[in-house]
Order: sequence, then structure tokens, then C-alpha cells
Amino acid sequence: MSQKKRILSGMRPTGPLHLGNLLGALANWVQMQDEYDCFFFIADWHALTSDYDDTDPIEGYKKEIMIDWLSAGLTPEKSTLFVQSLVKEHAELFLILSMITPVPWLERNPTYKEQIGQLSNKDLSTFGFLGYPVLQAADIIMYKPYGVPVGVDQAPHVEITREIARRFNYYYGNVFPEPEVILTETPKILGTDRRKMSKSYDNAIFLSNSPDTISNKVAGMITDPQRARRTDPGNPEVCNVFDFHKLYTAPDIVTEIDQQCRTAGIGCVECKHKMAQNLIRALEPIREKRAYYEARPELVEQIMIEGSNKARETAKQTMADVRAAIKV
Amino acid sequence: MSQKKRILSGMRPTGPLHLGNLLGALANWVQMQDEYDCFFFIADWHALTSDYDDTDPIEGYKKEIMIDWLSAGLTPEKSTLFVQSLVKEHAELFLILSMITPVPWLERNPTYKEQIGQLSNKDLSTFGFLGYPVLQAADIIMYKPYGVPVGVDQAPHVEITREIARRFNYYYGNVFPEPEVILTETPKILGTDRRKMSKSYDNAIFLSNSPDTISNKVAGMITDPQRARRTDPGNPEVCNVFDFHKLYTAPDIVTEIDQQCRTAGIGCVECKHKMAQNLIRALEPIREKRAYYEARPELVEQIMIEGSNKARETAKQTMADVRAAIKV
Repeated sequence: MSQKKRILSGMRPTGPLHLGNLLGALANWVQMQDEYDCFFFIADWHALTSDYDDTDPIEGYKKEIMIDWLSAGLTPEKSTLFVQSLVKEHAELFLILSMITPVPWLERNPTYKEQIGQLSNKDLSTFGFLGYPVLQAADIIMYKPYGVPVGVDQAPHVEITREIARRFNYYYGNVFPEPEVILTETPKILGTDRRKMSKSYDNAIFLSNSPDTISNKVAGMITDPQRARRTDPGNPEVCNVFDFHKLYTAPDIVTEIDQQCRTAGIGCVECKHKMAQNLIRALEPIREKRAYYEARPELVEQIMIEGSNKARETAKQTMADVRAAIKV
Repeated sequence: MSQKKRILSGMRPTGPLHLGNLLGALANWVQMQDEYDCFFFIADWHALTSDYDDTDPIEGYKKEIMIDWLSAGLTPEKSTLFVQSLVKEHAELFLILSMITPVPWLERNPTYKEQIGQLSNKDLSTFGFLGYPVLQAADIIMYKPYGVPVGVDQAPHVEITREIARRFNYYYGNVFPEPEVILTETPKILGTDRRKMSKSYDNAIFLSNSPDTISNKVAGMITDPQRARRTDPGNPEVCNVFDFHKLYTAPDIVTEIDQQCRTAGIGCVECKHKMAQNLIRALEPIREKRAYYEARPELVEQIMIEGSNKARETAKQTMADVRAAIKV
């Protein structure tokens, strides 16, 4: 048995992964693999909370995301990579936690209110969407992790999981440790239109994008809106392309570009071109590994199944504890 | 494969069965065994909706109820007798149906409002209690039954199941037939205090009660409240004991008692005594079979496990259909 502390996190298969997912989560996960006993899962049942009316794409997204993970550096040799719906125990724990979770806890959940507002084109008044945090709590505490790596905006999710775990322990005895919030660094990165990067905004650069597609997307990025002509000086502080440079361009060149922008020494077209080249180069190892896994779908499938089998072993032990505690 | 139409019903293990349960459901189930392919289950997960704060008695009640069933004439040779929590597929289908069930359907559910009102000593504002009809829908449609035998007061439960099945079929294709309501006869029978017979009112005559206990309970029954003295004439129409006579006493004797009561020819003590003897005699075969099964707990256990294994075979097929339909 590993003596490393266990962590767990997951992603919903609602689309291929983009730079926001990489920098906001996946890159951190890859780093954490050596320090922690990592469980990472594809939350396909969670995808139903918002996408129940069109489930056709979910299966393809699952495979894409697993390829994205493997390409970015997650590996079944270090981590347990699994699919939620292949570990049926999650459904049973969801049902049991349902019985002890007060509805007001769920109605107060800030993400619930936010999403209902944001996704106004969808009917999210379903029982499953209301119970999102209950399923999430089941997903997490099933593996009794030390902690959950999240960005600061997701910390409330873990808080409600802690509350549900505490309530279970109060009624039935001490089965679940309360998972810690492990706050991760999430560098500022926006979509090509300066809104939050998101598949649904059509402003995302995906890990699976070809060099040409990346070049085209970068060429269309919004820069300093005040800089109307090539001869106008620009302000890098308000320029989204400059934020990308800070992540993907060597520091001395970043300083140079900063100066040249402010003095109109470099135009936005050339500046974007430089950034695109660096971004394409940075993503090159991911693209190479992606080509490898894309050519081996049966290997990807096998990794999902074997990871899920491994996760299920732990889940079975937890459910034995749960059933002994509640005596049902 | 049986060519009989399939029906399904269940009971929550919240206490041993009483005459109300026998006459309102169990006796009908026993009759239906020859005409239908019957699935009857002990809804132990459902018991958590109201009894999550004290789950200790549930295990014992499950065994008691299975003994009550077998003693009353249900038999694994004719019916599939199973335990909900032993067929984990119910939890998965509950989770999936959660995703498509609008919260307002649940909030409008008359039983939800009624129970919240009735059980005011319990905190029922849980997510699981709100989702009671979703779990019930999963329990029912899992077996694609032709119908569900219920008393008239429970018909709305089946209606919401039909709505959930219809919605599933609308989104994902025609997987579930909508179960019919099979209205069953439920003879009027009240508790010893003339309220609805219920374990929680302490007014119930249980199938497991000894002849002495039955005699004592009958002796304490409320009769015509207007008949204060032995010499007063009584009114059988308002007498609960007389309702019992109509069920357990020969019709010519019932007519005789009716006359004698109205003319003060018989006192309540004697009238109760006659009824108690008839009731005790009627329940004698159940008590005899109960003694047999009480002495064989491992047989009862085996019947529960084998019935659940049998139910699981059907549930697995349904879940294969469900997963193919939703593609998750």
C-alpha cells in the first residue's frame, strides 16, 4: 500500500479539454502524481445533470478527455484514472447520502444558483441537478481522500462534501474523514474573446487543436481595444495576448515585447504570431502523445477499464464500511 | 418464461405487519400469485427516507416482514420475493431518473406534503425524502411490470412513475412501458382506537400477535361511544368491533349480533369476546406458518437472497437497455 496521502478530483465529459482546463487543473494534477496517491475520474453521470437532453456526445467526450489526460502526462502507472459510471458503488452512496442531506443545504449552494442563472437556455430544475453536490460528495468520500485539489471558486463544493461527511459520521459513526481543500494555482487565462475560456463560448484553444488551428485562433484574439492602428502604442497590461506571452514566452522576450508594444515597435499581428509559435511549441509534446493514443483506441479503453477496476476495489471496501454503519 | 402479466409491489420495513397491511395489501398479493408473475420487495432503502436517524431496527423488520409474507401465503415458488438493497441496480436507475425528474413534480406530490405534515416530529426536509417518488419509479419500472396493485390512496404514486417513465422514453427511446394502476379492494378496518391502524399509533393488531395479546387488544377496542351501559342498545353501524365481525364472523352470526346489539341483547364484552375468538381462529394458519419460519431463520435468509438474485437478473437486463439508451 502507498503511504502517500490520497487526493481525488474529476472532470465532466462535456467537451474536449482546452488551455483553461490544462492550466486550471490538469497541469496541477500531473505535478501532483509524484507527491500524492491520485484518483482522477471522468464524471460522466455528472454530465447528465446539465446534458440529459442530449447524451449522444458524452461517450466520445469521455475518450477524448482520457486521451487529453494521458497526453498531458497523467499515467495509470502513477494514478488511478477511472470512469464514474463504471464504479456503480457511486450510485449507491449517492442514494444513501441523499437520505441525510437537507434540501436547504442544496438550495443555498452558490454553484446551484449561479448555474441556474448562467445556463438559462437549459431546464435545470431537475432533481438530479439539485442533488449535484450529493453525488459529488459520494464521488469524493468514497475514496476517503486526504484532500481535493480545486481552484478557489470551487472550494464551496468541497465544503458541502465535508458537511455531508460530518452528518453521516454523526448518525452512523466515524466512517469518513473530512477531505481538505487543496487550493491550486490557476494562472489567469481567458478565451480568445477575453471572456472565460469555455467550449460553449466558442473562444477556447483545445489541447487537440492543430498548429494551424491554434495560429488562426490566436490571429483572431482580441488585444488592447484602444490600439486601433499599427502606429498607435499599446498597453500590454490590458492585452490578453500578452497574458499568453507571460505563460508561453521566455521572460527576456516578454520584457522586450512589453517595451515594443508600448512604443508601437511591434504590431499586434507580429506579436500574435510570435505567441502562437511559442504556444504551438509548448503544446507539441501533448500533440505528439495524443497522436499516439488516438491511434490506439483499444489501449485508451483498456486504461479506463483497468483504472475503474482498481477504483472499484477501494469503493467496495468503503461500501462495506457504509453498510455496516447504517445496517441497511 | 412465464406468459403471465407481471406485477410488482413493495413494503417498507418500518415495523411488523398488522391487519391493516394484511387486508390492504398482503391478502391481495397472495391471491394474485396464481394470475400474475409477481415481484414483491422489501423497500429497505425507502425506510431510510423517514428513519435515517435510527436505522438499527430496519434489519430486524426486514426479517419479520419476510416471515409475515411467507406466513400469509406468499411463496418463492410462485413469486419473486426480494430485498431492494440487495439489487444495487435500483440505485443506478434512481440516479439516472433523478437527472430527468423536475423538482416541481416532486414538490407537488400529495404524499410528500401529507407526510411532511403528519410526521412533524421528524425532520423530513431531506433530499432523499423529496426524491421518494424517483426511487419508487426506479423500483417499479426496473421490472417493466404490466401494473402495480395499490389501494386508491396510493394511485398518485403510480401516476408519477408513469410520468417519469414517459419522460425517459421521450428523451432516450421506448425502454419502459407505463405501469397500470391495479386498484385493489381494501376492506374498511381501523385500529383499536378507531384511528387508521398504524404501528406508530399503538393501535395495531399484528400478524405475529399471540391469541392472548389479540384478546387483550380486542377487549380494549372502542365500540359505539353512545352505548354507556350494558343495558343501553348499541348501534353496530358506528362500531369498529362490528366492522371486524363482518370480516371474521359467519354472515348469519353477524346478522344475529347486529340485532342483539341494537336491542341490548348482547353486551360489548361478550361481543368482543366472540369476535376475538373468530379473529384468532382466522389468523391461526398464519401463526402456525410463522412458528415454522421463526424456527428456521437461515431458510428465511436464503429465500431473501435467492429471490434477490432472481430479481437482479431482470434488473441487469433492464440496466443494459437503459445504458444503451442513454449511452452513459
